[in-house]
Amino acid sequence: MVSATGTLTFDDAKALTPDALRRRIRTGDWTGETVGLALGQMQANLAVVPLEDAFDFMRFCQRNPKPCPLIAVTEPGGYTSAFFAANADIRTDFPRYKVFADGAVTGTPSNVLDAWQSDSVAFLLGCSLTFESALLEAGVPLRHLEHGRKIPVYVSNIDCEPAGKFSGPMVVSMRAVPAHLVSKAAQITARYPWGHGGPVHVGDPAALGITDLEAVDFGEPPVMEPGDVPMFWGCGITPQIAAERAKPRYMITHYPEHMLVSDRRSEQDAVC
Amino acid sequence: MVSATGTLTFDDAKALTPDALRRRIRTGDWTGETVGLALGQMQANLAVVPLEDAFDFMRFCQRNPKPCPLIAVTEPGGYTSAFFAANADIRTDFPRYKVFADGAVTGTPSNVLDAWQSDSVAFLLGCSLTFESALLEAGVPLRHLEHGRKIPVYVSNIDCEPAGKFSGPMVVSMRAVPAHLVSKAAQITARYPWGHGGPVHVGDPAALGITDLEAVDFGEPPVMEPGDVPMFWGCGITPQIAAERAKPRYMITHYPEHMLVSDRRSEQDAVC
Repeated sequence: MVSATGTLTFDDAKALTPDALRRRIRTGDWTGETVGLALGQMQANLAVVPLEDAFDFMRFCQRNPKPCPLIAVTEPGGYTSAFFAANADIRTDFPRYKVFADGAVTGTPSNVLDAWQSDSVAFLLGCSLTFESALLEAGVPLRHLEHGRKIPVYVSNIDCEPAGKFSGPMVVSMRAVPAHLVSKAAQITARYPWGHGGPVHVGDPAALGITDLEAVDFGEPPVMEPGDVPMFWGCGITPQIAAERAKPRYMITHYPEHMLVSDRRSEQDAVC
Repeated sequence: MVSATGTLTFDDAKALTPDALRRRIRTGDWTGETVGLALGQMQANLAVVPLEDAFDFMRFCQRNPKPCPLIAVTEPGGYTSAFFAANADIRTDFPRYKVFADGAVTGTPSNVLDAWQSDSVAFLLGCSLTFESALLEAGVPLRHLEHGRKIPVYVSNIDCEPAGKFSGPMVVSMRAVPAHLVSKAAQITARYPWGHGGPVHVGDPAALGITDLEAVDFGEPPVMEPGDVPMFWGCGITPQIAAERAKPRYMITHYPEHMLVSDRRSEQDAVC
Protein backbone atom coordinates (compact mmCIF):
# COMPACT_ATOMS: atom_id res chain seq x y z
CA MET A 1 0.00 0.00 0.00
CA VAL A 2 1.33 3.42 -0.91
CA SER A 3 0.58 6.04 1.74
CA ALA A 4 0.91 9.81 1.44
CA THR A 5 4.47 9.43 2.67
CA GLY A 6 5.44 6.70 0.17
CA THR A 7 5.87 2.95 0.43
CA LEU A 8 8.01 3.05 3.57
CA THR A 9 6.48 3.11 7.04
CA PHE A 10 7.66 5.82 9.42
CA ASP A 11 9.34 3.21 11.62
CA ASP A 12 11.17 1.71 8.65
CA ALA A 13 12.24 5.16 7.50
CA LYS A 14 13.39 6.01 11.00
CA ALA A 15 15.65 2.94 11.11
CA LEU A 16 17.58 3.88 7.96
CA THR A 17 21.04 5.40 7.83
CA PRO A 18 21.17 8.94 6.44
CA ASP A 19 22.54 7.70 3.12
CA ALA A 20 19.94 4.96 2.81
CA LEU A 21 17.15 7.35 3.75
CA ARG A 22 18.26 9.83 1.10
CA ARG A 23 18.27 7.02 -1.49
CA ARG A 24 14.71 6.00 -0.57
CA ILE A 25 13.67 9.65 -0.78
CA ARG A 26 15.36 9.94 -4.18
CA THR A 27 13.43 6.95 -5.52
CA GLY A 28 10.14 8.23 -4.11
CA ASP A 29 9.78 5.56 -1.43
CA TRP A 30 9.59 8.27 1.22
CA THR A 31 7.84 11.54 0.32
CA GLY A 32 6.89 12.64 3.85
CA GLU A 33 8.35 14.94 6.48
CA THR A 34 11.87 14.33 7.75
CA VAL A 35 10.90 15.40 11.28
CA GLY A 36 11.69 12.52 13.63
CA LEU A 37 13.87 10.72 11.08
CA ALA A 38 17.65 10.26 11.21
CA LEU A 39 17.68 11.47 14.80
CA GLY A 40 20.86 13.28 15.79
CA GLN A 41 21.84 14.05 12.20
CA MET A 42 21.94 17.64 11.05
CA GLN A 43 19.16 18.52 8.62
CA ALA A 44 18.98 21.52 6.29
CA ASN A 45 16.48 23.88 4.75
CA LEU A 46 16.95 24.85 1.11
CA ALA A 47 16.93 28.04 -0.91
CA VAL A 48 18.00 28.02 -4.56
CA VAL A 49 18.36 31.28 -6.47
CA PRO A 50 19.89 32.19 -9.84
CA LEU A 51 23.58 33.16 -9.86
CA GLU A 52 22.64 36.80 -10.53
CA ASP A 53 21.07 36.97 -7.05
CA ALA A 54 23.30 34.53 -5.20
CA PHE A 55 25.90 36.96 -3.84
CA ASP A 56 23.19 39.28 -2.53
CA PHE A 57 21.38 36.36 -0.92
CA MET A 58 24.58 35.03 0.61
CA ARG A 59 25.32 38.41 2.19
CA PHE A 60 21.74 38.51 3.49
CA CYS A 61 22.25 35.14 5.21
CA GLN A 62 25.69 36.06 6.54
CA ARG A 63 24.30 39.26 8.09
CA ASN A 64 21.36 37.47 9.69
CA PRO A 65 22.88 34.27 11.03
CA LYS A 66 20.24 33.55 13.68
CA PRO A 67 17.36 33.08 11.20
CA CYS A 68 19.59 32.13 8.22
CA PRO A 69 22.48 29.92 9.36
CA LEU A 70 24.65 29.27 6.31
CA ILE A 71 25.81 25.66 6.37
CA ALA A 72 26.86 25.27 2.75
CA VAL A 73 26.59 27.01 -0.63
CA THR A 74 27.06 25.10 -3.86
CA GLU A 75 29.13 26.05 -6.85
CA PRO A 76 26.94 27.71 -9.52
CA GLY A 77 24.95 24.96 -11.23
CA GLY A 78 26.18 22.43 -8.69
CA TYR A 79 23.79 20.27 -6.71
CA THR A 80 26.13 18.54 -4.31
CA SER A 81 27.83 19.39 -1.02
CA ALA A 82 30.38 16.80 0.01
CA PHE A 83 30.70 18.65 3.30
CA PHE A 84 27.05 18.19 4.15
CA ALA A 85 26.24 14.80 2.63
CA ALA A 86 28.74 12.98 0.46
CA ASN A 87 26.40 11.27 -1.99
CA ALA A 88 23.42 13.58 -1.84
CA ASP A 89 21.79 15.15 -4.90
CA ILE A 90 20.15 18.39 -3.83
CA ARG A 91 17.71 18.16 -6.77
CA THR A 92 16.18 14.88 -5.58
CA ASP A 93 17.01 14.21 -1.95
CA PHE A 94 14.54 16.51 -0.28
CA PRO A 95 11.19 14.70 -0.06
CA ARG A 96 9.33 17.72 -1.44
CA TYR A 97 10.08 21.17 -2.82
CA LYS A 98 8.42 24.48 -3.55
CA VAL A 99 9.18 26.10 -6.91
CA PHE A 100 8.65 29.83 -7.47
CA ALA A 101 8.69 32.04 -10.54
CA ASP A 102 8.95 35.79 -9.93
CA GLY A 103 7.89 35.26 -6.31
CA ALA A 104 4.80 33.08 -6.98
CA VAL A 105 4.58 29.35 -6.24
CA THR A 106 4.32 27.31 -9.44
CA GLY A 107 4.58 23.80 -7.98
CA THR A 108 5.45 21.52 -5.08
CA PRO A 109 7.22 18.59 -6.77
CA SER A 110 9.08 15.72 -5.16
CA ASN A 111 12.17 16.46 -7.24
CA VAL A 112 13.41 19.52 -9.13
CA LEU A 113 15.38 17.88 -11.93
CA ASP A 114 13.35 19.90 -14.44
CA ALA A 115 13.40 23.18 -12.52
CA TRP A 116 17.16 23.11 -11.95
CA GLN A 117 19.15 25.52 -14.14
CA SER A 118 22.79 25.72 -15.11
CA ASP A 119 23.04 28.93 -13.04
CA SER A 120 21.28 27.58 -9.93
CA VAL A 121 23.05 28.17 -6.62
CA ALA A 122 21.81 26.15 -3.64
CA PHE A 123 21.99 27.38 -0.08
CA LEU A 124 21.72 24.77 2.67
CA LEU A 125 20.47 26.57 5.76
CA GLY A 126 20.29 25.29 9.31
CA CYS A 127 17.00 24.25 10.86
CA SER A 128 15.76 23.90 14.41
CA LEU A 129 15.50 20.12 14.39
CA THR A 130 19.14 20.20 15.45
CA PHE A 131 18.54 21.98 18.71
CA GLU A 132 15.12 20.52 19.44
CA SER A 133 16.53 17.06 19.93
CA ALA A 134 19.25 18.53 22.15
CA LEU A 135 16.60 20.29 24.24
CA LEU A 136 14.67 17.07 24.68
CA GLU A 137 17.82 15.19 25.67
CA ALA A 138 18.44 17.83 28.34
CA GLY A 139 14.94 17.47 29.73
CA VAL A 140 13.49 20.68 28.34
CA PRO A 141 9.88 19.88 27.37
CA LEU A 142 8.69 20.94 23.92
CA ARG A 143 5.01 21.81 24.21
CA HIS A 144 4.27 21.60 20.48
CA LEU A 145 5.56 18.04 20.34
CA GLU A 146 3.80 17.03 23.57
CA HIS A 147 0.50 18.23 22.13
CA GLY A 148 1.03 17.15 18.52
CA ARG A 149 0.89 20.69 17.20
CA LYS A 150 2.94 22.60 14.71
CA ILE A 151 5.29 25.11 16.28
CA PRO A 152 3.94 28.68 16.65
CA VAL A 153 5.70 31.11 14.32
CA TYR A 154 5.41 34.91 14.18
CA VAL A 155 6.59 37.69 11.92
CA SER A 156 8.45 39.94 14.37
CA ASN A 157 9.01 43.71 14.23
CA ILE A 158 12.78 43.16 13.95
CA ASP A 159 14.08 44.16 10.55
CA CYS A 160 16.72 41.87 9.15
CA GLU A 161 19.92 43.52 8.02
CA PRO A 162 19.30 43.96 4.28
CA ALA A 163 21.72 42.96 1.50
CA GLY A 164 21.31 43.98 -2.11
CA LYS A 165 17.72 43.23 -3.13
CA PHE A 166 17.01 41.08 -0.07
CA SER A 167 15.31 42.49 3.02
CA GLY A 168 12.44 41.69 5.33
CA PRO A 169 11.33 41.03 8.87
CA MET A 170 12.85 38.40 11.11
CA VAL A 171 10.46 35.51 11.54
CA VAL A 172 10.65 33.82 14.93
CA SER A 173 9.49 30.52 16.37
CA MET A 174 8.29 30.39 19.96
CA ARG A 175 8.80 27.66 22.53
CA ALA A 176 7.17 27.98 25.95
CA VAL A 177 9.75 26.84 28.48
CA PRO A 178 9.30 26.34 32.25
CA ALA A 179 10.96 29.27 34.02
CA HIS A 180 13.55 27.15 35.79
CA LEU A 181 14.71 25.71 32.45
CA VAL A 182 15.01 28.99 30.52
CA SER A 183 18.71 29.39 31.25
CA LYS A 184 19.41 25.78 30.29
CA ALA A 185 17.44 26.14 27.04
CA ALA A 186 19.39 29.31 26.16
CA GLN A 187 22.72 27.65 26.87
CA ILE A 188 21.93 24.47 24.99
CA THR A 189 20.66 26.12 21.84
CA ALA A 190 23.61 28.53 21.77
CA ARG A 191 25.80 25.47 21.18
CA TYR A 192 24.23 24.96 17.74
CA PRO A 193 24.83 28.02 15.54
CA TRP A 194 23.71 25.83 12.60
CA GLY A 195 20.44 25.16 14.42
CA HIS A 196 19.61 28.93 14.73
CA GLY A 197 21.77 29.25 17.86
CA GLY A 198 20.57 30.84 21.08
CA PRO A 199 17.24 32.65 21.39
CA VAL A 200 16.85 36.13 19.90
CA HIS A 201 14.48 37.11 22.70
CA VAL A 202 13.17 35.77 26.00
CA GLY A 203 10.10 36.81 27.93
CA ASP A 204 8.24 39.69 26.33
CA PRO A 205 6.35 39.02 23.08
CA ALA A 206 5.32 42.69 22.87
CA ALA A 207 8.96 43.69 22.47
CA LEU A 208 8.91 41.77 19.19
CA GLY A 209 5.62 43.38 18.14
CA ILE A 210 3.64 40.25 19.03
CA THR A 211 0.53 41.42 20.87
CA ASP A 212 -1.31 38.11 20.93
CA LEU A 213 0.52 34.77 21.06
CA GLU A 214 -2.66 33.06 19.85
CA ALA A 215 -2.48 34.96 16.56
CA VAL A 216 0.26 32.97 14.87
CA ASP A 217 1.48 33.88 11.40
CA PHE A 218 2.53 30.29 10.65
CA GLY A 219 2.08 26.99 12.45
CA GLU A 220 -0.43 26.58 15.27
CA PRO A 221 -1.17 28.56 18.47
CA PRO A 222 1.01 27.66 21.43
CA VAL A 223 0.23 25.60 24.49
CA MET A 224 1.43 27.50 27.58
CA GLU A 225 1.59 25.82 30.97
CA PRO A 226 1.50 27.93 34.15
CA GLY A 227 4.98 29.29 34.80
CA ASP A 228 6.12 28.91 31.20
CA VAL A 229 8.22 31.70 29.70
CA PRO A 230 7.99 32.39 25.97
CA MET A 231 11.37 32.02 24.26
CA PHE A 232 11.89 33.11 20.66
CA TRP A 233 14.39 31.82 18.12
CA GLY A 234 15.21 32.90 14.57
CA CYS A 235 13.15 30.89 12.08
CA GLY A 236 13.97 29.47 8.65
CA ILE A 237 10.89 31.10 7.14
CA THR A 238 12.84 34.39 7.30
CA PRO A 239 14.97 33.80 4.19
CA GLN A 240 11.95 32.44 2.30
CA ILE A 241 10.03 35.67 2.94
CA ALA A 242 13.04 37.79 1.99
CA ALA A 243 13.44 35.80 -1.21
CA GLU A 244 9.75 35.97 -2.06
CA ARG A 245 9.79 39.75 -1.56
CA ALA A 246 12.84 40.12 -3.77
CA LYS A 247 11.11 38.12 -6.51
CA PRO A 248 14.08 36.42 -8.06
CA ARG A 249 13.50 35.17 -11.61
CA TYR A 250 13.10 31.71 -10.10
CA MET A 251 13.56 30.15 -6.71
CA ILE A 252 13.38 26.67 -5.23
CA THR A 253 12.94 25.92 -1.54
CA HIS A 254 12.27 22.82 0.51
CA TYR A 255 8.63 22.16 1.36
CA PRO A 256 8.08 22.93 5.08
CA GLU A 257 9.23 20.07 7.33
CA HIS A 258 10.69 18.20 4.31
CA MET A 259 14.42 18.69 4.81
CA LEU A 260 17.70 17.25 3.57
CA VAL A 261 19.29 14.77 5.96
CA SER A 262 23.03 15.16 6.45
CA ASP A 263 25.86 12.74 7.03
CA ARG A 264 26.96 15.05 9.82
CA ARG A 265 25.95 14.50 13.41
CA SER A 266 24.57 17.72 14.88
CA GLU A 267 27.10 17.32 17.67
CA GLN A 268 30.01 17.52 15.21
CA ASP A 269 29.36 21.21 14.64
CA ALA A 270 28.28 22.17 18.14
CA VAL A 271 30.41 24.84 19.77
CA CYS A 272 32.01 24.59 23.21
CA MET B 1 58.32 64.86 16.33
CA VAL B 2 56.85 62.51 13.78
CA SER B 3 57.83 58.87 14.34
CA ALA B 4 57.36 55.91 11.99
CA THR B 5 53.98 55.36 13.60
CA GLY B 6 52.77 58.96 13.27
CA THR B 7 52.54 61.89 15.66
CA LEU B 8 50.82 59.91 18.43
CA THR B 9 52.77 57.97 21.01
CA PHE B 10 51.81 54.33 21.56
CA ASP B 11 50.55 55.15 25.04
CA ASP B 12 48.41 57.99 23.72
CA ALA B 13 47.04 55.76 20.95
CA LYS B 14 46.33 53.02 23.48
CA ALA B 15 44.23 55.39 25.58
CA LEU B 16 41.87 56.33 22.73
CA THR B 17 38.36 55.01 22.21
CA PRO B 18 37.92 52.89 19.07
CA ASP B 19 36.19 55.73 17.25
CA ALA B 20 38.82 58.27 18.24
CA LEU B 21 41.63 55.88 17.30
CA ARG B 22 40.10 55.32 13.86
CA ARG B 23 39.85 59.09 13.36
CA ARG B 24 43.51 59.57 14.25
CA ILE B 25 44.41 56.74 11.86
CA ARG B 26 42.28 58.37 9.15
CA THR B 27 44.13 61.65 9.53
CA GLY B 28 47.52 59.94 9.53
CA ASP B 29 48.32 60.64 13.16
CA TRP B 30 48.76 56.89 13.75
CA THR B 31 50.26 54.79 10.96
CA GLY B 32 51.61 51.91 13.05
CA GLU B 33 50.41 48.47 14.07
CA THR B 34 47.12 48.09 15.90
CA VAL B 35 48.49 45.25 18.02
CA GLY B 36 48.12 46.24 21.67
CA LEU B 37 45.70 49.09 20.92
CA ALA B 38 41.99 49.23 21.75
CA LEU B 39 42.37 46.19 23.99
CA GLY B 40 39.28 43.99 24.15
CA GLN B 41 37.82 45.38 20.92
CA MET B 42 37.44 43.06 17.96
CA GLN B 43 39.84 43.85 15.13
CA ALA B 44 39.62 42.72 11.52
CA ASN B 45 41.81 41.76 8.61
CA LEU B 46 40.83 43.02 5.16
CA ALA B 47 40.47 41.54 1.70
CA VAL B 48 38.94 43.59 -1.11
CA VAL B 49 38.23 41.99 -4.48
CA PRO B 50 36.24 43.09 -7.55
CA LEU B 51 32.56 42.16 -7.65
CA GLU B 52 33.26 39.59 -10.38
CA ASP B 53 35.26 37.53 -7.85
CA ALA B 54 33.38 38.40 -4.67
CA PHE B 55 30.87 35.52 -4.63
CA ASP B 56 33.63 32.97 -5.23
CA PHE B 57 35.75 34.53 -2.49
CA MET B 58 32.82 34.63 -0.07
CA ARG B 59 32.16 30.91 -0.63
CA PHE B 60 35.86 30.25 -0.08
CA CYS B 61 35.71 32.00 3.28
CA GLN B 62 32.43 30.35 4.28
CA ARG B 63 33.88 26.90 3.55
CA ASN B 64 37.07 27.58 5.48
CA PRO B 65 35.86 29.38 8.59
CA LYS B 66 38.83 28.56 10.81
CA PRO B 67 41.39 30.47 8.71
CA CYS B 68 38.85 32.86 7.12
CA PRO B 69 36.22 33.90 9.67
CA LEU B 70 33.70 36.10 7.82
CA ILE B 71 32.70 38.98 10.08
CA ALA B 72 31.21 41.32 7.49
CA VAL B 73 30.99 41.82 3.74
CA THR B 74 30.19 45.22 2.25
CA GLU B 75 27.72 46.06 -0.46
CA PRO B 76 29.49 46.31 -3.85
CA GLY B 77 31.34 49.62 -3.92
CA GLY B 78 30.53 50.18 -0.25
CA TYR B 79 33.23 50.94 2.28
CA THR B 80 31.27 50.90 5.52
CA SER B 81 30.00 48.26 7.92
CA ALA B 82 27.68 49.69 10.55
CA PHE B 83 27.72 46.28 12.20
CA PHE B 84 31.46 46.34 12.70
CA ALA B 85 32.19 50.01 13.28
CA ALA B 86 29.50 52.64 12.87
CA ASN B 87 31.57 55.54 11.57
CA ALA B 88 34.46 53.69 9.99
CA ASP B 89 35.62 54.19 6.42
CA ILE B 90 37.27 50.99 5.23
CA ARG B 91 39.33 52.97 2.68
CA THR B 92 41.11 55.07 5.30
CA ASP B 93 40.77 53.52 8.74
CA PHE B 94 43.35 50.76 8.47
CA PRO B 95 46.79 52.27 9.27
CA ARG B 96 48.33 50.67 6.18
CA TYR B 97 47.27 48.58 3.19
CA LYS B 98 48.70 46.34 0.51
CA VAL B 99 47.45 46.89 -3.04
CA PHE B 100 47.78 44.17 -5.68
CA ALA B 101 47.26 44.10 -9.45
CA ASP B 102 46.96 40.65 -11.05
CA GLY B 103 48.49 39.07 -7.94
CA ALA B 104 51.53 41.37 -7.62
CA VAL B 105 51.99 44.03 -4.94
CA THR B 106 51.90 47.54 -6.40
CA GLY B 107 51.96 49.58 -3.20
CA THR B 108 51.57 49.77 0.57
CA PRO B 109 49.71 53.07 1.09
CA SER B 110 48.17 54.43 4.27
CA ASN B 111 44.82 54.87 2.54
CA VAL B 112 43.23 53.39 -0.56
CA LEU B 113 40.98 56.24 -1.66
CA ASP B 114 42.59 56.09 -5.10
CA ALA B 115 42.67 52.29 -5.41
CA TRP B 116 39.02 51.86 -4.43
CA GLN B 117 36.69 51.04 -7.33
CA SER B 118 32.94 51.26 -7.77
CA ASP B 119 32.85 47.44 -7.89
CA SER B 120 35.04 46.87 -4.83
CA VAL B 121 33.68 44.44 -2.25
CA ALA B 122 35.36 44.44 1.16
CA PHE B 123 35.60 41.39 3.38
CA LEU B 124 36.31 41.98 7.07
CA LEU B 125 37.87 38.80 8.40
CA GLY B 126 38.54 37.83 11.98
CA CYS B 127 42.06 37.94 13.42
CA SER B 128 43.75 36.26 16.34
CA LEU B 129 44.16 39.39 18.47
CA THR B 130 40.68 38.55 19.74
CA PHE B 131 41.61 35.26 21.29
CA GLU B 132 45.16 36.15 22.27
CA SER B 133 43.95 38.67 24.84
CA ALA B 134 41.48 36.08 26.14
CA LEU B 135 44.31 33.55 26.50
CA LEU B 136 46.41 36.03 28.45
CA GLU B 137 43.47 36.88 30.71
CA ALA B 138 43.10 33.16 31.44
CA GLY B 139 46.75 32.79 32.36
CA VAL B 140 47.89 31.00 29.20
CA PRO B 141 51.38 32.36 28.43
CA LEU B 142 52.09 33.51 24.87
CA ARG B 143 55.74 32.78 24.15
CA HIS B 144 56.02 35.10 21.16
CA LEU B 145 54.85 38.06 23.24
CA GLU B 146 57.05 37.09 26.20
CA HIS B 147 60.09 37.07 23.94
CA GLY B 148 59.16 39.99 21.70
CA ARG B 149 59.00 37.84 18.59
CA LYS B 150 56.59 37.63 15.72
CA ILE B 151 54.35 34.59 15.86
CA PRO B 152 55.58 31.49 13.95
CA VAL B 153 53.43 30.76 10.91
CA TYR B 154 53.56 27.74 8.59
CA VAL B 155 52.00 26.70 5.31
CA SER B 156 50.35 23.39 6.25
CA ASN B 157 49.64 20.36 4.07
CA ILE B 158 45.89 20.81 4.63
CA ASP B 159 44.13 21.89 1.46
CA CYS B 160 41.42 24.45 1.95
CA GLU B 161 38.04 23.62 0.51
CA PRO B 162 38.17 25.42 -2.86
CA ALA B 163 35.45 27.72 -4.24
CA GLY B 164 35.38 28.95 -7.82
CA LYS B 165 38.83 30.30 -8.66
CA PHE B 166 40.01 30.35 -5.04
CA SER B 167 42.03 27.51 -3.54
CA GLY B 168 45.18 26.95 -1.57
CA PRO B 169 46.78 25.52 1.55
CA MET B 170 45.65 26.34 5.04
CA VAL B 171 48.20 28.56 6.73
CA VAL B 172 48.51 28.01 10.48
CA SER B 173 49.96 29.94 13.38
CA MET B 174 51.62 28.04 16.24
CA ARG B 175 51.54 28.78 19.93
CA ALA B 176 53.56 26.63 22.31
CA VAL B 177 51.37 26.01 25.35
CA PRO B 178 52.30 24.29 28.63
CA ALA B 179 50.74 20.81 28.60
CA HIS B 180 48.49 21.44 31.58
CA LEU B 181 46.98 24.49 29.83
CA VAL B 182 46.30 22.88 26.43
CA SER B 183 42.72 22.01 27.26
CA LYS B 184 42.04 25.48 28.61
CA ALA B 185 43.58 27.11 25.53
CA ALA B 186 41.40 24.95 23.27
CA GLN B 187 38.25 25.78 25.20
CA ILE B 188 38.93 29.50 25.39
CA THR B 189 39.75 29.99 21.73
CA ALA B 190 36.70 27.94 20.67
CA ARG B 191 34.57 30.69 22.22
CA TYR B 192 35.73 33.13 19.52
CA PRO B 193 34.74 31.86 16.08
CA TRP B 194 35.56 35.37 14.78
CA GLY B 195 39.06 35.01 16.24
CA HIS B 196 39.77 31.78 14.24
CA GLY B 197 38.01 29.64 16.86
CA GLY B 198 39.55 26.53 18.41
CA PRO B 199 42.82 25.02 17.20
CA VAL B 200 42.88 23.02 13.97
CA HIS B 201 45.54 20.72 15.38
CA VAL B 202 47.31 19.98 18.66
CA GLY B 203 50.54 18.15 19.27
CA ASP B 204 52.08 16.78 16.07
CA PRO B 205 53.58 19.26 13.59
CA ALA B 206 54.42 16.41 11.19
CA ALA B 207 50.72 15.67 10.74
CA LEU B 208 50.44 19.13 9.17
CA GLY B 209 53.50 18.53 7.02
CA ILE B 210 55.70 20.66 9.26
CA THR B 211 58.98 18.77 9.69
CA ASP B 212 60.95 21.53 11.40
CA LEU B 213 59.29 24.10 13.64
CA GLU B 214 62.35 26.33 13.22
CA ALA B 215 61.69 26.64 9.49
CA VAL B 216 58.82 29.13 9.60
CA ASP B 217 57.16 30.32 6.41
CA PHE B 218 56.17 33.66 7.99
CA GLY B 219 56.96 35.35 11.28
CA GLU B 220 59.82 34.16 13.48
CA PRO B 221 60.90 30.76 14.86
CA PRO B 222 59.14 29.72 18.06
CA VAL B 223 60.36 29.68 21.61
CA MET B 224 59.48 26.32 23.19
CA GLU B 225 59.83 25.76 26.94
CA PRO B 226 60.23 22.21 28.31
CA GLY B 227 56.80 20.59 28.47
CA ASP B 228 55.22 22.90 25.91
CA VAL B 229 52.84 21.39 23.37
CA PRO B 230 52.57 22.97 19.91
CA MET B 231 49.01 24.12 19.17
CA PHE B 232 48.01 25.26 15.68
CA TRP B 233 45.25 27.67 14.67
CA GLY B 234 43.96 28.79 11.28
CA CYS B 235 45.76 31.93 10.15
CA GLY B 236 44.57 35.00 8.28
CA ILE B 237 47.38 34.68 5.74
CA THR B 238 45.33 31.81 4.23
CA PRO B 239 42.85 33.98 2.32
CA GLN B 240 45.65 36.29 1.16
CA ILE B 241 47.52 33.36 -0.38
CA ALA B 242 44.33 32.05 -1.99
CA ALA B 243 43.59 35.48 -3.39
CA GLU B 244 47.14 35.99 -4.64
CA ARG B 245 47.02 32.59 -6.40
CA ALA B 246 43.69 33.42 -8.02
CA LYS B 247 45.16 36.70 -9.32
CA PRO B 248 42.06 38.86 -9.23
CA ARG B 249 42.25 41.93 -11.47
CA TYR B 250 42.96 43.92 -8.34
CA MET B 251 42.99 43.25 -4.64
CA ILE B 252 43.49 45.28 -1.49
CA THR B 253 44.44 43.82 1.89
CA HIS B 254 45.48 45.23 5.23
CA TYR B 255 49.21 45.44 5.84
CA PRO B 256 50.22 42.72 8.36
CA GLU B 257 49.44 43.73 11.96
CA HIS B 258 47.70 46.92 10.76
CA MET B 259 44.04 46.09 11.36
CA LEU B 260 40.69 47.84 11.58
CA VAL B 261 39.51 48.44 15.13
CA SER B 262 35.86 47.68 15.77
CA ASP B 263 33.20 49.24 17.98
CA ARG B 264 32.40 45.69 19.08
CA ARG B 265 33.89 44.16 22.20
CA SER B 266 35.31 40.72 21.36
CA GLU B 267 33.19 39.34 24.17
CA GLN B 268 29.97 40.45 22.43
CA ASP B 269 30.40 37.78 19.79
CA ALA B 270 31.88 35.05 21.93
CA VAL B 271 29.87 31.83 22.01
CA CYS B 272 28.72 30.02 25.13
